[in-house]
Amino acid sequence: MFPFAAPVRDLRFVLEELLEHRSLDLPGFEEATPDLVEAVLEEAAKLAGEVWAPLNASGDRQGCMRREDGGVTLPNGFAEAYQAYVEGGWNGIGVSEALGGQGLPEVVASSVQEMLHGANMALGLCPMLTAGAIEALAHHGSDALKETYLPKLVEGSWTGTMNLTEPQAGSDLSKVRTRAVPQEDGSYRLFGQKIFITWGEHDASENIIHLVLARKPDAPEGNKGISLFLVPKYLVNADGSLGERNDVTCASIEHKLGIHGSPTCTLSFGENDGAIGYLVGEEGRGLNHMFTMMNEARHKVGIQGIGVAERACQHAFAYALDRTQGRSPRSGRDDCTISDHLDVRRMLLSMRARTDALRALALYCAAQLDVARHGAAGEREVAQARADVLIPVVKAFSTDQAVDIASLGVQVHGGMGFIEETGAAQLLRDARIAPIYEGTNGIQALDLAGRKLQRDGGAALAGLIEEVEATASELSENGEHAAMGESLAAGAADLEAAMQLVLEAGRDPEQGADAIQAYATPFLSLAGHVLCAWQMGRAALRASAAQASGNSEPFYQAKQAAADFALRHWLPVGRANRSVIEAGMKSLADYRVTPS
Amino acid sequence: MFPFAAPVRDLRFVLEELLEHRSLDLPGFEEATPDLVEAVLEEAAKLAGEVWAPLNASGDRQGCMRREDGGVTLPNGFAEAYQAYVEGGWNGIGVSEALGGQGLPEVVASSVQEMLHGANMALGLCPMLTAGAIEALAHHGSDALKETYLPKLVEGSWTGTMNLTEPQAGSDLSKVRTRAVPQEDGSYRLFGQKIFITWGEHDASENIIHLVLARKPDAPEGNKGISLFLVPKYLVNADGSLGERNDVTCASIEHKLGIHGSPTCTLSFGENDGAIGYLVGEEGRGLNHMFTMMNEARHKVGIQGIGVAERACQHAFAYALDRTQGRSPRSGRDDCTISDHLDVRRMLLSMRARTDALRALALYCAAQLDVARHGAAGEREVAQARADVLIPVVKAFSTDQAVDIASLGVQVHGGMGFIEETGAAQLLRDARIAPIYEGTNGIQALDLAGRKLQRDGGAALAGLIEEVEATASELSENGEHAAMGESLAAGAADLEAAMQLVLEAGRDPEQGADAIQAYATPFLSLAGHVLCAWQMGRAALRASAAQASGNSEPFYQAKQAAADFALRHWLPVGRANRSVIEAGMKSLADYRVTPS
Repeated sequence: MFPFAAPVRDLRFVLEELLEHRSLDLPGFEEATPDLVEAVLEEAAKLAGEVWAPLNASGDRQGCMRREDGGVTLPNGFAEAYQAYVEGGWNGIGVSEALGGQGLPEVVASSVQEMLHGANMALGLCPMLTAGAIEALAHHGSDALKETYLPKLVEGSWTGTMNLTEPQAGSDLSKVRTRAVPQEDGSYRLFGQKIFITWGEHDASENIIHLVLARKPDAPEGNKGISLFLVPKYLVNADGSLGERNDVTCASIEHKLGIHGSPTCTLSFGENDGAIGYLVGEEGRGLNHMFTMMNEARHKVGIQGIGVAERACQHAFAYALDRTQGRSPRSGRDDCTISDHLDVRRMLLSMRARTDALRALALYCAAQLDVARHGAAGEREVAQARADVLIPVVKAFSTDQAVDIASLGVQVHGGMGFIEETGAAQLLRDARIAPIYEGTNGIQALDLAGRKLQRDGGAALAGLIEEVEATASELSENGEHAAMGESLAAGAADLEAAMQLVLEAGRDPEQGADAIQAYATPFLSLAGHVLCAWQMGRAALRASAAQASGNSEPFYQAKQAAADFALRHWLPVGRANRSVIEAGMKSLADYRVTPS
Repeated sequence: MFPFAAPVRDLRFVLEELLEHRSLDLPGFEEATPDLVEAVLEEAAKLAGEVWAPLNASGDRQGCMRREDGGVTLPNGFAEAYQAYVEGGWNGIGVSEALGGQGLPEVVASSVQEMLHGANMALGLCPMLTAGAIEALAHHGSDALKETYLPKLVEGSWTGTMNLTEPQAGSDLSKVRTRAVPQEDGSYRLFGQKIFITWGEHDASENIIHLVLARKPDAPEGNKGISLFLVPKYLVNADGSLGERNDVTCASIEHKLGIHGSPTCTLSFGENDGAIGYLVGEEGRGLNHMFTMMNEARHKVGIQGIGVAERACQHAFAYALDRTQGRSPRSGRDDCTISDHLDVRRMLLSMRARTDALRALALYCAAQLDVARHGAAGEREVAQARADVLIPVVKAFSTDQAVDIASLGVQVHGGMGFIEETGAAQLLRDARIAPIYEGTNGIQALDLAGRKLQRDGGAALAGLIEEVEATASELSENGEHAAMGESLAAGAADLEAAMQLVLEAGRDPEQGADAIQAYATPFLSLAGHVLCAWQMGRAALRASAAQASGNSEPFYQAKQAAADFALRHWLPVGRANRSVIEAGMKSLADYRVTPS
């Protein structure tokens, strides 16, 4: 088992050189100096590497267990590791100071999240869900609810959950059936069952605050009848102390492929006289309220994928540098490490280049979110529009790639990769959930191709494509990078052409909805490849600048290799998606799905 | 959990319509009539579906356990299911009649193997290893060894293993250290440890025959010092009855990602006075003897991947036809099954089209093996050369794709895919070993690009490319298939161009070895895509012919959709590998691998 070292150097490269720390110049981030950010990253790296990472394998082996009393026993050490996180003040770093957080930029919070997910994805889910609850409450909760619940959630001493899914309502939440019956005191009593509730029950925090989609008895069918409710595990007294146990229980936990350290619960609401809950936001607007925060939750899932991909890189690199096997054609030594074989090196560089690229794009997206919230009036809309387009890409593309990177990590280990104790297999098992939850990657693709692209006629993405083209030109003007520039320019042209096809589909009232469905996933993949390659093109230019200024750190040479790989070995595969879209939807539309 | 129905209709389509049952016309297969083959497939389907498949999930959950007495307890029912296979006479179907088998063509044996692996991959490994032992003994064993061991192995009442890997000797077997000390009676005593021995210890058969790579004490270093030995678990008396337990024990079994029902053992030879063994073939030619049979074992691993991919299709199709969610744009119904959403259908058709394509190519390869053994003198060499080129493609491409297909199967299930009881996750876990064992897929790519391609200057592959071009022309001449033909012709051109680059690398004495390493994997992927697409192009033509003759079976319409998908939605992604190869090896060669 290899240790995990949080990728501080790589994160700093993105924050300082690719993003030029622009978030720090925004109003409201005056206290976030580069020195402070550096210190934050170093401290987070310690927590990730020393406290969270050592529990990753043991948490996987031990898993979670539902006790007879309905409680859930976490893997050994998880509660303490979570407490260390709370005590370090990490839960509030990205939360605004007005809500009791540290109000650091999203780029910094995302960097810290990446480290923690790389260290221990199962544990990282707990605060990820809490962050969603904070977001929902902060935007939509009444003052009374905010006053009672937010401080503890921001601190992390209470954790949050998202209760959306029911057996018949997954991707289609309009089918939610959980009932919320109004009481005379203005509260509600909830009855129903929710499944797949991440960190739905545990003892690592004093209280758990469930945010639950449900309908009032007289609510209309469909989306418009759904409201959002807050249901605490323990009721909270007027003085803020904890009162009685609410009528919500963990009926079972799931036996899953991965993230064994994260309890995935079936929660029963109202098995006795009803779970007491409070309306959050407007009646009938539950789905909208959820979606407010889902955008950012999706960004975080992308970040999570990158964390696991980073760890997979570290395992694979360490193994490949240690394992001797075969003869090196160059040195002629017959005890070379497998990292010397170019076929293995191809796997390593493919893993590294893609992880770097995904990270750069996800943090670029985070920087857009910073500007959207803190930028000047004119900048905000553009930044938000870019973030809106980028978020489904970051979520889906990062997580799909993370699965592939983790799988390649298994391959680098050869036979040892298939043995659980090596740890490579766990990363694949853990990563496999990320393309599914928080909206499947198919849903992300539809969000991009259907909703985000159509509503502004592609304006936001067109703006990004212009930036890609500018980078391509800059690369092309530089002899050393000319081939990269050519490849990137071709990618930009493909993305532009594919975008027009998707927009055209959107204008077709008859078959448009089907065509968008057919094109969505290849389109998202194309966008992901081009935008990630763009970031690596920028990385190559920055690396050249550093090298030209006399910096001979091997880091920059490695970045050049990663950029070359991303633009010339990886991007061409992504570009093929244009042809896929051009092939149209006929074979899909005509296909009669019948049992095999 | 969905049942498994062996894909008899699809197998028959390949055997009867794509391969036109040509193997049956070869000398030696006179008794193998189309009717007999059909009956064999139907009977095998029963064994697979009714006896082996129901144990797949329970075998995964229960796994294997090493007992204190050094024995291994198999999952419940595995020994009985194996006995049913032996009693049905299945073990010898592909073995020549001279050796006591049924002597059916390889295309038929491969079809049966696919069904059994789809039903229960972990159990399917047992006879797969036995087949390797039979092959090695039949080709290289002395008459005495053959007489004593072959009948029982062919019958299946004894099983075989392959003992190659040692902790320091995996892909590089020249590092094998196990010692074989000659005894006065002509036998040997073996001392050493072998790891990752599939079905290395169990009670499902009366005896286990280990084939072991080892060196005599005075043997030279490297490959040339390695010989092959037969080491039975129980010594065999002169009258054929079982004698004493030999000095080989199971030291431990591995805790693996998948194939839990297959005991993967560490075997200790000679912990007491040495494990008695017998030389197989020539001294110092152990690796060559192993490689004789490895070619075919690799084909079988490819077949195994296809079996698992088929099962993943069946699970995903059944789930997608059952799960209602969302609104169909076409019918407007808001309780449509998810198979109605084109994004889901894209996943389903992608799984199905690729599985069909892989199967067709693997059986085409099997047909070449039939001709290589039974064809007329002039045909044999060409067929063998084609099989030699195809085998690494079938092994590596089928298994890489199988992992991806199984992963897509998980995705189709949404959240349920991540829950172990659904069964989709097991298929991904099981499939993940296939790109690793029997020579990693990187080794396969090197075998193709380095060895197979270079030794005949690409002649065999060029012959295949000509056939691809002919099919492309035939498609292009047919209005309905013109777009497919165009795509296939472009693929053939890419493969031809890439082959020239690989051959050029082979002529470069300085950097050629590195360049071949750098190009090998993308080259194999390109070849796999083009050759599989070729088979689907042929399938489209056959389906059209059937439809033109008035056959309105929905099967043929589905085949057309699968062919269109394979040629126009899948092949473009594979074609991108040409650009990857054209990008050269510089970024790989320059890359300094350092710890992350």
